[in-house]
Order: sequence, then C-alpha cells, then structure tokens
Amino acid sequence: MAEQLNNIRIILINTTHPGNIGSVARAMKVMGLSQLHLVSPLRFPAAEATALASGADDLLQDAVVHESLDKALDGVGLVLGTSARLRTLSLPQMDVRAAAEQSVAESSKHPVAILFGRERHGLTNDEIQRCHFLLNIPANPEYSSLNLAQAVQVLSYELRVAALGEAGLIQESLDYTPVDAGQMEMFFTHLEQTLLDTRFLNPAQPKMLMARLRRLYARARPDQNEINILRGILAASQKACDPGFIKPVAEAGDD
Amino acid sequence: MAEQLNNIRIILINTTHPGNIGSVARAMKVMGLSQLHLVSPLRFPAAEATALASGADDLLQDAVVHESLDKALDGVGLVLGTSARLRTLSLPQMDVRAAAEQSVAESSKHPVAILFGRERHGLTNDEIQRCHFLLNIPANPEYSSLNLAQAVQVLSYELRVAALGEAGLIQESLDYTPVDAGQMEMFFTHLEQTLLDTRFLNPAQPKMLMARLRRLYARARPDQNEINILRGILAASQKACDPGFIKPVAEAGDD
Repeated sequence: MAEQLNNIRIILINTTHPGNIGSVARAMKVMGLSQLHLVSPLRFPAAEATALASGADDLLQDAVVHESLDKALDGVGLVLGTSARLRTLSLPQMDVRAAAEQSVAESSKHPVAILFGRERHGLTNDEIQRCHFLLNIPANPEYSSLNLAQAVQVLSYELRVAALGEAGLIQESLDYTPVDAGQMEMFFTHLEQTLLDTRFLNPAQPKMLMARLRRLYARARPDQNEINILRGILAASQKACDPGFIKPVAEAGDD
Repeated sequence: MAEQLNNIRIILINTTHPGNIGSVARAMKVMGLSQLHLVSPLRFPAAEATALASGADDLLQDAVVHESLDKALDGVGLVLGTSARLRTLSLPQMDVRAAAEQSVAESSKHPVAILFGRERHGLTNDEIQRCHFLLNIPANPEYSSLNLAQAVQVLSYELRVAALGEAGLIQESLDYTPVDAGQMEMFFTHLEQTLLDTRFLNPAQPKMLMARLRRLYARARPDQNEINILRGILAASQKACDPGFIKPVAEAGDD
C-alpha cells in the first residue's frame, strides 16, 4: 500500500498561509501519504508550517518546491484538479471516492498528481486545463467553506481506504500507457504552431480554441505511439504550407 | 438528507481546547451536520472556539452543554464510540464507512450519537461501555495523530456521502454530448483525405494508421463543437496545400 500512496503527489499552488502547508502535511501523513509538492508558495519554509505540521515535519523537509506547475507535473501520468466552482469549459468530474480509486489504480503505472489551488481563488482556468478530471468533494451547499487541510484530509482518507481495499478494485484494462504531462505540453505547443501556420488559429482572436483542444485531447489521453502519429500529422501539415510543396494529384480537391 | 443528518449528534467529551470545539463545528457544518453536544468542556463558550468556527458559529450557539454523558445520550437509539486504542473489553468494531451507513440508516428511526473523547486520552472504559459499536478511522500506524477536528471531518464526510446515497460517481461535464456515429465517420473520411493531401498517409502503405487514429478519437468522444473545430483544422490544412497558399511570416519555420 505504501508504494501506491508514495506515487501520488499532492500539489499545492501559490499557498498564501504557510500554516496551511503544515496542516496539509499532517493531514497527508496521518493517512500515509508522503509526496508534497509546492508551486511558488508565498512563504516556505516557515515557522508556522512547522508548528502546524505537528510531527509531520519530515514531509515538509522533503517537500519539493517548484517555480511552475509544469515542473511539478514532470513525469506525471494522471492529473486531477480540485475545484469548488462551476466552469464554463468544464472537464469530466469525479467524486472524491471515484477519484481516489482511479488514482490508486493508476499509481502503480505512473505518478499521479492532485492539484489544490489558492486558498481563496482555487485553480486558474489554465491550471484546470492541465487536468484530466475535476475532483469534487461533496459539501453543504449553504456553507461549503472546506479549507485546504480539510479537503486534503478527506481526499487522503479516501486514498488510504482505496489503497487498503485494493483487492476489490476493477482495474481498467488499458493496453496503453498515457504519456506524461511534459509530452502533452510539447504536443500542444506543436499543435498551436501548426494552427498558426495553416492560419486556422488567428493570433489576434485566439478565443477558446486551445482550451477546447486541450480538453478534447485530455479526454483521449494519448499514449506515446499516438502522440508520435499526431505530431507526424502536424509536421506533414507544416511541410504542406511550404511554397515548394506539391499536392498529390490523384487525391487532390477531394474533401 | 438534511433530516437524516439533523438526527445525528456529535458528542465531544471533556474537550480541553475550546479552539477544537470551533474546528469541529466547522468540520460538521461544511458537511451539513448541525447537532453538536458537549459534555463538561473545560471552557465554553470561548473566543478561540468562535474564531476557529469561522462562520459555523450558529452550531456553537445551538450547541447543548451537558453535565454528564447520560444527559447527552437522552433519547438516543444508537451510540457509536471513536477510539484509537485497543481495549481489553472490546466492542464490535466498524470502519467509518460502515458506521456512517448504519448511522444514516437508523437516523430516520431515532437519534444517533457519535462520541469523541478527550484530546489526549480518548474515551474512558465507562464511556466505551455506553456504546453499541466502536468506530475505527483508518490511519497510518506510524503516525496516527488524527486530531479531533480531522476525525470529525472524515466522519462527517462519510455521513454526508451515506446520506446522499451515491458515491463513486464519474460525471461527464454537463455541456458535453458526444456526436453520433455518422458524424464520426464523416470526420474520419475528412481526416483520411487530409492525411493523403499532406502526404502523411501513403496510400500504398496505409498500415494501421487510420485504425490507430480511430481508437484515439473514439476514446476522446468529441462533441459537435469539437468535431467542427477538428474539421476546421483539417480544412485549413488542405487549403495550406494549395500552390497559392502563403505561409504567415511571423510564425513560419517554428516547430
């Protein structure tokens, strides 16, 4: 069980109060989680964090601080975001139990990341777009002020229960391994450039185009072979934009 | 659901730190519980309790303070005790999920009480003997310092999930309806033609290319808007193959 939980990282983004980082470390450790990642915390290390960690200070010492979410997602195969708000461009949602089961099931294949946003404002739309699923913790609609440490506590509890009950789990019969977050970013960069080259994307009016494409390909979760094909298609499209390109005659003009 | 949760009372016995009472109130309210009972708290009401309740002060105002556990259990039909330690005279044990389901099931018949003992020493043997079951919250055996508010948070979460009667749900985002098979076929026809136009697909050696792309996009299950975008991208790629197409200068040559 420890191995599974050790492959699930909790990522806190731009945490304002260092005390919350300490409380989160405690909430994690009490359920056997160990991987705490921090993206640009306002202040860390900090005395308040250590005070509230109350014995979980080893997690604080081992916490990895990143300058960007990209770095924190390096090598990660499944990304879940926590969000209290409804979004215009929403992702598939899981409740916390389903999310915990999925995370534990996939943790033997690749690192899993669960993102928690700022205390007041949660995750940005850009950050949400890095996720495969949104995770929803049920709460009283008239008083849904679950704080950061409480949310991590409930999630960590469900992760522990899922890891303990692993025998009963139905594993997805995937004959493929999705690529990691870095590969996806390279693909999206390549895709965007190609859309500029073919003039489908108007840089003066990008609208929601890339956000919509991100959501679509996040649902597909391509593996390495598929990413190679997709990028091959993009490269061929880019080459076709070059003045010297001669369109094959037999197939030309067909839509 | 509210009715069920309103018939389940959380009883804190001899709580030492008033701040913990406030944190417990918050943990309860965020999951929709409302019945807080206190047996001989060291200090209550107290400013620390109100401060940590953070908006759940209505639960503190309504909290019932008792001189004895007997009074707090008046009329209660099911009593559950929480305990971290093993007891010589042990009761039947339930994990927190089973306990929550049992509590919600019985809450329509009679009030249910869940007892939490002192911060350091838990429940006494006398208090344990008032319980029908002991409730066990799974925790890291090497660091099982779940504090009072965290324990109440996990339990309250399970009570809410049990009352909702649904867990393990995965919801597609609401604004999303996958297109039908006919639309998918038109997309694949268009895709194949474009790959011929851009010379990515060699008609003499098609291999498994279209089959692999079909599997990928079947996983993604695009909706109408996404199909429109994808076909727009294809049309732009086809146009870029035409001899008269002039590649935008600013973005050209980038990969």
